[in-house]
Amino acid sequence: MKIDNKFFMKLAIDEAWKYQFLTYPNPAVGCVVVKGNSEILSIEAHKEAGMPHAEVNALKQAFLKYHPNDVIKTLSDSFEIHDYLIRNHNGFFNDCTIFVTLEPCNHIGKTPSCANLIKHLNPKKVVIAHEDINKEAKGGQKTLEEASIVCELGCMKKEAYELLYPFLKWNSSSFVFYKMAQTLNGTVDGGKISSNQTLAYVHTLRDRIDLMVIGGNTVRTDRPTLDARYVVGRAPEVMIYSKNKIFDNQIPLFKVPNRKVFISDDLFKILDYKFVMIEGAYTLLEKLNEKIDYLVLLISPKIRNGLNAINQIDLDFKIVHENYIGKEKIVYLKRK
Amino acid sequence: MKIDNKFFMKLAIDEAWKYQFLTYPNPAVGCVVVKGNSEILSIEAHKEAGMPHAEVNALKQAFLKYHPNDVIKTLSDSFEIHDYLIRNHNGFFNDCTIFVTLEPCNHIGKTPSCANLIKHLNPKKVVIAHEDINKEAKGGQKTLEEASIVCELGCMKKEAYELLYPFLKWNSSSFVFYKMAQTLNGTVDGGKISSNQTLAYVHTLRDRIDLMVIGGNTVRTDRPTLDARYVVGRAPEVMIYSKNKIFDNQIPLFKVPNRKVFISDDLFKILDYKFVMIEGAYTLLEKLNEKIDYLVLLISPKIRNGLNAINQIDLDFKIVHENYIGKEKIVYLKRK
Ligand SMILES: [Zn+2]
Ligand SMILES: [Zn+2]
Repeated sequence: MKIDNKFFMKLAIDEAWKYQFLTYPNPAVGCVVVKGNSEILSIEAHKEAGMPHAEVNALKQAFLKYHPNDVIKTLSDSFEIHDYLIRNHNGFFNDCTIFVTLEPCNHIGKTPSCANLIKHLNPKKVVIAHEDINKEAKGGQKTLEEASIVCELGCMKKEAYELLYPFLKWNSSSFVFYKMAQTLNGTVDGGKISSNQTLAYVHTLRDRIDLMVIGGNTVRTDRPTLDARYVVGRAPEVMIYSKNKIFDNQIPLFKVPNRKVFISDDLFKILDYKFVMIEGAYTLLEKLNEKIDYLVLLISPKIRNGLNAINQIDLDFKIVHENYIGKEKIVYLKRK
Repeated sequence: MKIDNKFFMKLAIDEAWKYQFLTYPNPAVGCVVVKGNSEILSIEAHKEAGMPHAEVNALKQAFLKYHPNDVIKTLSDSFEIHDYLIRNHNGFFNDCTIFVTLEPCNHIGKTPSCANLIKHLNPKKVVIAHEDINKEAKGGQKTLEEASIVCELGCMKKEAYELLYPFLKWNSSSFVFYKMAQTLNGTVDGGKISSNQTLAYVHTLRDRIDLMVIGGNTVRTDRPTLDARYVVGRAPEVMIYSKNKIFDNQIPLFKVPNRKVFISDDLFKILDYKFVMIEGAYTLLEKLNEKIDYLVLLISPKIRNGLNAINQIDLDFKIVHENYIGKEKIVYLKRK
């Protein structure tokens, strides 16, 4: 296997994918710091909006690798880490290359500018997979180059684009993903499919999204709650997709305090929201498939004699990423 | 992400999995060479029986990283690389750590002993995931320790055991895997499911195995050839699993020169072979599931309205590895 810039960028991209969706409304970003030719000091990502950017996490961990007991260990606030590194780097990063999946941000918002931080640390090189498209944040590469720091743009750009895609969509209009849990042989019923770890992940997603869409029949049959209680999170707004507006108001989902539920068969309503998750099986997917950006499959490694994924649709996907949640798989598929 | 011994061993394990099954009758083995604390010099694997072991590939690439135009570049024979490195290493590996998924071999067979080579190169440390169980090859760690080289055994041993498992089985009795190609929603028919790249991989597997098993109904309906023509490989012996012994002898599979085909419904016949692939869909899996070690799923990222994976079995698996073949997935599942 070749150990080159692509190898290091792939590590950054894979790390970022671990936090895909969870950084909303920010993009998922990964960063790797390499000293000399190929000494990996850190592989980090941006984890949640308001928390340090990928570069800040990676620069902090890289510094700690050589200064394991340094006081920077105790800092978690972005402004504090920036300030500390600028004052104490002592040339440590001069022989380092920074690999980052997205152009370092150039503006000071909730967190200070990463381009400004990197400029002060003066690394050997900054390798950027994808340029920023955010009007306020872009210009990071220019800032670095004006400070005579060598930048290289476009390493694994295609893969970085796939990583960035949900952000690009929710930033410009809406990003809609269809979440489905199934067994290996495509059965979607037959009792509890997912592990507790996967259920906790689904609740974390519910905490982050703006709107959750669910079919009327599922609501009537399953009588769900659709909150984020496993992670003590915020219950999302719910759209019940149904022509028939009559529901038993004792169904738990109607009783979650401080959240809006509405019943509609107008799919354009979805586009009033930026980050939307649809939960369902193949029947609803058949109806909604033209509205979705991603299919997110949670696959449990079982074969079951259950209701099969029978449908009348032919859909082709590209696998943009896959990962493990405990012993189950999560697969991110983009419509072809 | 923590950059520790497990991180490097995981790189070695993942590299080895790329050649799982293809190294038969040898085990799949991976090796990573790290200079100083975390400078990755090489990530290599054993690729095919008779070709250099993982350690030899990794040590050669590591040496080349610092001596890019060295004559070692032109060497591909194990004995030559061993000999060259022993004479020309010049202490290069003294500050290196070697991560290897299986204890370095201790005997001289088709290839010379890796333990002996490493002993001469005198690295800082050798980290071994799993001890060798082969009577002739084992003892590598002892050889190294007697030469005062620090060894650490057991890093990611569980994951290395999963990597080694097919070898352990075919070495002691038989290893049987069930290969099935399907879409995301579990349909197994509906025309050509797999890409050309996946078909080439299947033909490579056919070239390596001792026996291929296929159901009688499939033979009657599909009239297959079951050779390895896409990779200009050897056609495997075929057992047609069928009670009814009457077949049209014009079916192409009977006409492949120099290969044995037999028709039987005695599953114990499988155990006369060391490395067996069963090709089929869910119906045959239902009949043979107690005989199989692995289910190998080739998944095409499509949803199709086809014959669904209807069955009466409940099977639980552990995902031991997954990988891409081009744009499709290969998932290795072990019976639970
Ligand atoms: Zn930033
Ligand atoms: Zn060896």
